[in-house]
Formats: sequence, structure tokens, C-alpha cells
Amino acid sequence: MKMESEAPTPLRYSPHMPAPTLDFWFEFASTYSYPAAMRIGALAQPAGAALRWRPFLLGPIFKAQGWDNSPFNLYPAKGRYMWRDLERVCGALGLPFVQPAQFPQNSVLAARVALVGLAQGWGEDFVRAVYAAEFGAGRNIGEPTAIAEILSALRRDADAVIAEANSDAIKAQLRSNTDEAARLGIFGAPSFVTAHGELFWGNDRLEAALAWARR
Amino acid sequence: MKMESEAPTPLRYSPHMPAPTLDFWFEFASTYSYPAAMRIGALAQPAGAALRWRPFLLGPIFKAQGWDNSPFNLYPAKGRYMWRDLERVCGALGLPFVQPAQFPQNSVLAARVALVGLAQGWGEDFVRAVYAAEFGAGRNIGEPTAIAEILSALRRDADAVIAEANSDAIKAQLRSNTDEAARLGIFGAPSFVTAHGELFWGNDRLEAALAWARR
Repeated sequence: MKMESEAPTPLRYSPHMPAPTLDFWFEFASTYSYPAAMRIGALAQPAGAALRWRPFLLGPIFKAQGWDNSPFNLYPAKGRYMWRDLERVCGALGLPFVQPAQFPQNSVLAARVALVGLAQGWGEDFVRAVYAAEFGAGRNIGEPTAIAEILSALRRDADAVIAEANSDAIKAQLRSNTDEAARLGIFGAPSFVTAHGELFWGNDRLEAALAWARR
Repeated sequence: MKMESEAPTPLRYSPHMPAPTLDFWFEFASTYSYPAAMRIGALAQPAGAALRWRPFLLGPIFKAQGWDNSPFNLYPAKGRYMWRDLERVCGALGLPFVQPAQFPQNSVLAARVALVGLAQGWGEDFVRAVYAAEFGAGRNIGEPTAIAEILSALRRDADAVIAEANSDAIKAQLRSNTDEAARLGIFGAPSFVTAHGELFWGNDRLEAALAWARR
């Protein structure tokens, strides 16, 4: 089977060309989504890619595979490896890393708040702040007080935002994102999907995904 | 948790310093072991690393995790993704890729022959030839005739080599490799282990493993 090289063709984008889009599918319970979320913004800009930040839930997708827990807990050798590998990856990127006592964490409220924030322009900062709290400081972001603190630090009205995050419209939007992720063949996080439907899985595929998005 | 950067320190090795070693754990049934096997030799040399090629079997390790098949077959979304991703990875490296009809393949004879060859100096060429046949040409390397053809192309006496590969000593050596892999915490292939016991999993961790081996 012959195929083109993965190396990005050097293209120039003029303001008249639409920027290529890349969907960034992330889950707040996912460890490798942390480094991906922290670096994707800086990498997408010079690559000329317009990002769409897409929070979703892995729980329903894992359940469909017969898992009721993170595979990193179900398969201890894989879990031990992941924590050490994540520590090395974060070290190489200069990102703080603290293994949280609780894993995986309940990510539902954080994902709903992210949807509110992404519609209002402060979502990306919120996403980074949640990951930094969870895997950079070892906090439990499943606790609503942790989410409220992060919102306050971002100068948002925590009570109002959390009320909106728990609205039926936002709940439905998160379910719809998760359904779409499953339809796209997503089985883990982070994942990246180009406008042409090319799926990439894992923080270590971010560069390849951006190169494909530019084709 | 603070840690050093993963970026390799530029070290110079003199002939008086022992070369750092890196163990390359591979399994002929493993798809991503193909690109790793094809590129590790060329990458290890400038990195100043002495490689030890370590064939092993994933079957017993998967069985201990409750799997009686490849996870790529047990979890179809993951499997579909892997084949497309492998095609992209091979395309970027300029490696031929043909998805074999049979997956996973019986890798026992190939692994035993590799042990014979690695002790006699032609093992690395044999390993690359097996992977090229399996994932570059879509052949079934579980068939002894395929292994015999590869040996003949390498100008080895196929009957004699296969007889030695099926000796009790070689069988025991492969079992011992597999036991050692499990003790090292290896749960997939390819894996790389430095002299200090740092474990790296996946073709995409090869560069990081070589950088750590040089520390």
C-alpha cells in the first residue's frame, strides 16, 4: 500500500485562505491530555491551524469496551509505566508534575464548565488551569470546590458559571460531544481529528496531527 | 515532583568509556515493533548506544492480563486506528506497508531463529527481514516455509538453523527472555530498557530511550 509522506509540505497561508482546522478532543481524567493541552496552543499557531477544543467523556466509551475503570488501573504494569512516562514527558517539557492520590477523577463538572467557558472566550485558560491543578499540583478536580477556586482565579463568577454548567443545555452538549467522539472512532484521549477525518491518538501524535491538518 | 530534563546532554564518548547499552525488546507479532526494528540500528550508532536485541513473546504477558488475543483485535476501534496509524508512520519513514491478512501471527519460530542468529552475527538482518516480510509485504511469518525462505535469502542453511532453533536450549532461552521481560514490567512491544532500568514503550519512544541511555 503506497501513501504520501507524513512530512508536512511547506505551505503558505494567505489571509484569504481558510485556516485548516484541527479538533482537539480531551478528557479531564486523561493523564496524557495534560501535556497536550499545555502545548497545543503554541504549536497550532505557527502551524496555521485553527483549533476546536472538544471536551468529552471517556467513561461511556470505556464502558462500551467492557471497562469500568481506567485501563491504567485495570492493567497495573501499564499504569506503573504510564505514571513514570508522564513524569518524564512533563520533565522534558518543563511542566510541573505531581501524581494525584485519586485516579481517575470525576471529570464531569470540569468538562461542563469547559463548554461554558469555550463559548465565552475563557475556556482554554480554564482547561489549562484544571490540568495544572490536577496533574501539576495533584489536586482532585472532581471536587466542585476545586472547580470554583479555579473559576475565581480566572475572575469568573463561580456560582453563576457552575449553575450554567449544570443546565440541561450544557449537559446535552457534553453528551453530544461524547457521542460524536465515539462515532469518530475515538477510544482514548487526547485525540486529534483533522477536517478530513484523520484521527490521531496521544500527546505524542500532536505534531503529526498538525502536519496533516495543513495538507 | 521535580526531575531533570529529558533533552540529551551532549556527551562525547571516548574509546575508553564503555558505550551505554539499550535493550531492545521486540515481538514479531507486534506491529509497531516493525518501524522500531527498521530504524533502531541507524539511530543507536550516532547516539553511541550499544544495542542488545531481545526477542520475547507477548502471549504469556497478555494472558496474565486476561487477554487471549491482541488488544487490537479485542478492541476494534483501537485496532482500526492502529492499522491506519501504522500506515502513516511507515509512510513517513518511507517503509513499505501491507496489512497482513492474518493478525496476530504465530511468532514463536521466528523468535527462536532470531536467538540463534543473534548469537551468530546475522540476527539483526534476520529480524529486519522478518518484519519486512510480515508488515512490508503482508506475508504470514508464522509459516515455517516463510522463515526458511528468509534464512535462504540470508544464505543460511535453513534446515540446520530451524533444527537448532527448536532445540531445548533455545526454547529455554526464549522462555527466559519472556520471564525477564515480565519482571522488568514490560507489557507491550516494542520496549526499550536502559542499563539503569528506565523502561520506554512504543516506537515513538525510541528517541527518548536513546537519550536516556546516554545519561
